[in-house]
Amino acid sequence: MRSHSGLFITFEGLDGSGSNHYAEALSRLLSRQGYRVTFTHEPTNGMIGGLVKARVAGEWEIAPETLQLLFTADRSENLRTKILPALDAGRIVISDRYILSALAYNVVLVNDPKWLAALNSRFIWPDLTFLIEVSPKLCARRVKERRMEIELYSEQDKLERVWQEYQRLASTQDHIYKINGERDDVAIIDEIAEIARSYLNTKSMGERSRSYTEARY
Amino acid sequence: MRSHSGLFITFEGLDGSGSNHYAEALSRLLSRQGYRVTFTHEPTNGMIGGLVKARVAGEWEIAPETLQLLFTADRSENLRTKILPALDAGRIVISDRYILSALAYNVVLVNDPKWLAALNSRFIWPDLTFLIEVSPKLCARRVKERRMEIELYSEQDKLERVWQEYQRLASTQDHIYKINGERDDVAIIDEIAEIARSYLNTKSMGERSRSYTEARY
Repeated sequence: MRSHSGLFITFEGLDGSGSNHYAEALSRLLSRQGYRVTFTHEPTNGMIGGLVKARVAGEWEIAPETLQLLFTADRSENLRTKILPALDAGRIVISDRYILSALAYNVVLVNDPKWLAALNSRFIWPDLTFLIEVSPKLCARRVKERRMEIELYSEQDKLERVWQEYQRLASTQDHIYKINGERDDVAIIDEIAEIARSYLNTKSMGERSRSYTEARY
Repeated sequence: MRSHSGLFITFEGLDGSGSNHYAEALSRLLSRQGYRVTFTHEPTNGMIGGLVKARVAGEWEIAPETLQLLFTADRSENLRTKILPALDAGRIVISDRYILSALAYNVVLVNDPKWLAALNSRFIWPDLTFLIEVSPKLCARRVKERRMEIELYSEQDKLERVWQEYQRLASTQDHIYKINGERDDVAIIDEIAEIARSYLNTKSMGERSRSYTEARY
């Protein structure tokens, strides 16, 4: 088992849910309150993350299995070089997307949950996850605005399946807070900040010693 | 389960064992005899293989887990784009290194056999494997000749551990032929060719339909 003195918060949601926006908003807010915060995201801006992004953008053709393995390699390296050192130094790490994205999007890629769980079995789990809930219909419209070439109905159909899987996964884990993402921006950020603050108040940062699935790096 | 009409032969051994030399020799020999042969190797010359080779050469620093995931991603893509299409077309595929290398070298990398077996669980196994046996002492000397910067004794120590693991793995699988690699080159190639020929004679190429662990690409 592995322990550290930091706090690991992740944001999840469909493409177009705004998870990145809210992850950044909470990072800024906690920083302003004097917390030491490290912000990160998947795929990363590293070399492996670049390969993943090129594939997601359709610039490169690789098999779904290969893509999942590259996502996992990118996560492995980000943990080792950025997330774990920051947690060990007692910082709050906020990541837009993490293992849950891999598990949820898996239904439209390889669809082999056991294999995917095994790939990720050496990684730590977050302390706290915010699942930003925006309907597949609205997300598909937003994605279509950014990427003209996609087909609206097939995108919505894909997101419906990922949405179902997110719901299923959220019901099996207790560190996940569902956030209604179809509201006024300020109301959403307020709710997230309130949950994060009450979590921080019940934990004494810098002194905690939590156990995780071991990640021997 | 997956079936194909080709034949999948792999060569394994320590760095410095000459596995690549013998894999190429058998490929040439079978080609000259009229067989349609596809030669390949790990890491590949593809984009992911390039990242792996850069790490192995010490040009890039990544965690052992990340390296194993990249090795696996490279294997996944090579299977999908080269090995499986060739086997489906009834060709003989000969690969220098495959899953067994990952399993054997794992003892000096992540040392988590269960995780590694899970990573590779969606890939087919070869029909026939030649394990070229050259002592860790001799292999370490050969590697040292190629790469001056390595430390001979630590290299030999590392190869000793990989050697033990190769021996253990070979004892649990029945498609592996151990070849004494510390002999005259011609004698080694003759023995390999003889085994391959007798294997080919008992199988009617192009009509076989073998079952494998499913690889759904």
